[in-house]
Amino acid sequence: MKIRIGIMGYGNLGRGIECAIKQNDDMELAAVFTRRDPSTVKILTDGVGVYNVSEAVSMADKIDVMILCGGSATDLPEQTPEYVKYFNVIDSFDTHAKIPEHFAAVDAAAKESGKVGIISVGWDPGMFSLNRLYANAILTDGKDYTFWGKGVSQGHSDAIRRIEGVVDARQYTVPVESALEAVRSGSNPELTTREKHTRECYVVVEEGADKARIENEIKTMPNYFSDYDTTVNFISEEELKANHNGIPHGGFVIRCGKTGVNGENSHIIEYSLKLDSNPEFTSSVLIAYARAAYKLSAEGACGCKTVFDIAPAYLCKQSGEELRKNLL
Amino acid sequence: MKIRIGIMGYGNLGRGIECAIKQNDDMELAAVFTRRDPSTVKILTDGVGVYNVSEAVSMADKIDVMILCGGSATDLPEQTPEYVKYFNVIDSFDTHAKIPEHFAAVDAAAKESGKVGIISVGWDPGMFSLNRLYANAILTDGKDYTFWGKGVSQGHSDAIRRIEGVVDARQYTVPVESALEAVRSGSNPELTTREKHTRECYVVVEEGADKARIENEIKTMPNYFSDYDTTVNFISEEELKANHNGIPHGGFVIRCGKTGVNGENSHIIEYSLKLDSNPEFTSSVLIAYARAAYKLSAEGACGCKTVFDIAPAYLCKQSGEELRKNLL
Repeated sequence: MKIRIGIMGYGNLGRGIECAIKQNDDMELAAVFTRRDPSTVKILTDGVGVYNVSEAVSMADKIDVMILCGGSATDLPEQTPEYVKYFNVIDSFDTHAKIPEHFAAVDAAAKESGKVGIISVGWDPGMFSLNRLYANAILTDGKDYTFWGKGVSQGHSDAIRRIEGVVDARQYTVPVESALEAVRSGSNPELTTREKHTRECYVVVEEGADKARIENEIKTMPNYFSDYDTTVNFISEEELKANHNGIPHGGFVIRCGKTGVNGENSHIIEYSLKLDSNPEFTSSVLIAYARAAYKLSAEGACGCKTVFDIAPAYLCKQSGEELRKNLL
Repeated sequence: MKIRIGIMGYGNLGRGIECAIKQNDDMELAAVFTRRDPSTVKILTDGVGVYNVSEAVSMADKIDVMILCGGSATDLPEQTPEYVKYFNVIDSFDTHAKIPEHFAAVDAAAKESGKVGIISVGWDPGMFSLNRLYANAILTDGKDYTFWGKGVSQGHSDAIRRIEGVVDARQYTVPVESALEAVRSGSNPELTTREKHTRECYVVVEEGADKARIENEIKTMPNYFSDYDTTVNFISEEELKANHNGIPHGGFVIRCGKTGVNGENSHIIEYSLKLDSNPEFTSSVLIAYARAAYKLSAEGACGCKTVFDIAPAYLCKQSGEELRKNLL
């Protein structure tokens, strides 16, 4: 019997989950839930129903793990504690500062329902967090660095789109190569925000718009751009569609640390991702942890968990014997 | 109360463990055990005893976790199943092909004694294995690459030393940069042994030795060198001591995979290590897993485990709350 996956929310992430299920033959898509009119939502999998979110709870016995594909700002803080009352759930909650309260809410509900809820799954938080943890556990005397990109920041792109006269925009976060090299050299540099990343903006404006004003508004925008070296490129809508249509991302987690009698030996641990599609990679991580949720629940576990709490073997369909033989 | 660590075997690895304990304030060194005459072994930690291995079992109640620092060829296959009868143990067993039988032997003994035995801890097997597993779980449609180096291979250095006329030698395994770049490009190259690594040898010979013969014997040595592009540098003993006295190592684990409706998006996951001291880094990994063994044992777990079976949070002294707040 396959693990039956439900998808709650059918945007980029939901579609990514649907594709990822096809790459994992121990899983099947059971249902897709949407806030839209289900008749308007076309999915890629034949024979699987699309339902209104209001029908989800009544289908609890048909779904082993529900993957919540909503946003962290307003959807997940409500959805995850609510749906874990009925389902094993996974989310990609990524508001770092609010993880403790989200964890507490999901944990309380999950312990009451006897379900498993795994939160903050993806690559940051997620795989990057795991690599920070492993590297910190090994090199206790050291320093962490996280760089993001090159990749599209949805939040920064949206911020540009809100400026008057802007039709569309794409913002890339770019790690500064010389900063990366300084970190890899083991020199443990202190790096400012400006020294670590630059921001590249591709902006489509209305005809006759004041480009100088728009460029200035972008570059001086607090929190989003004012602390960075930002370049603004005005391009046509056609060029934006042709050359900036993807959602690539990635980044680097590096820890430099010392060992020895007097800290005389240096070590560098580096983890990096180079992703053509941010949502599809995130979906692939979510699916692996959905398998873990299923296995944990089958063993009788319940409560809220993060990637820190889950033994790696739970992510795999292979047996312990196979994993030891082929991957250890 | 601190976690009391025993060290079985006081070579490079044992000394590395001793240094690593000093970097972890929730641990203390309880005792060092040696096959040598204990009076001839000087350790770095004041007030800690050095004992003959024959005394270990009688000190079982003074040690929470015993770290076995012997070799994989003959020591560990005997020691780990034996000592897990009395102690929670950790080893760095690295004969990949024999891991299944080693696991079975340790598991049987550990289940009988009620102790925890964690085997094959270090960086390969160990952190590299973990990264292979995580990357395979996420990118199920992909290809793995492991490169080693630049670093000293003890086995290859020893093989050179066995050649007639050789006084001393150091062999570096070096990943081929162009092969690494090809992998990172996402082109999924098929790489032969020769295309992935080169071997650099620094050799000190007896006066009047036939260098041409020695160079030929090295380059044509089956298994060790004949499948590689090997360079042989004859140097003086002084130069060997001055420039090749360290034990650096490292390497790269890379997985390239595809996602999407038709596999149209590529992703690259890369993990790399650059280590000044192979034994000290390995020791730091062992110490983190010693903490895990202690916690698991305190929870009532027993049996043989590998890095695949242990939730990451067990490696850390911080609480779940602290880890979620600071590292997730």
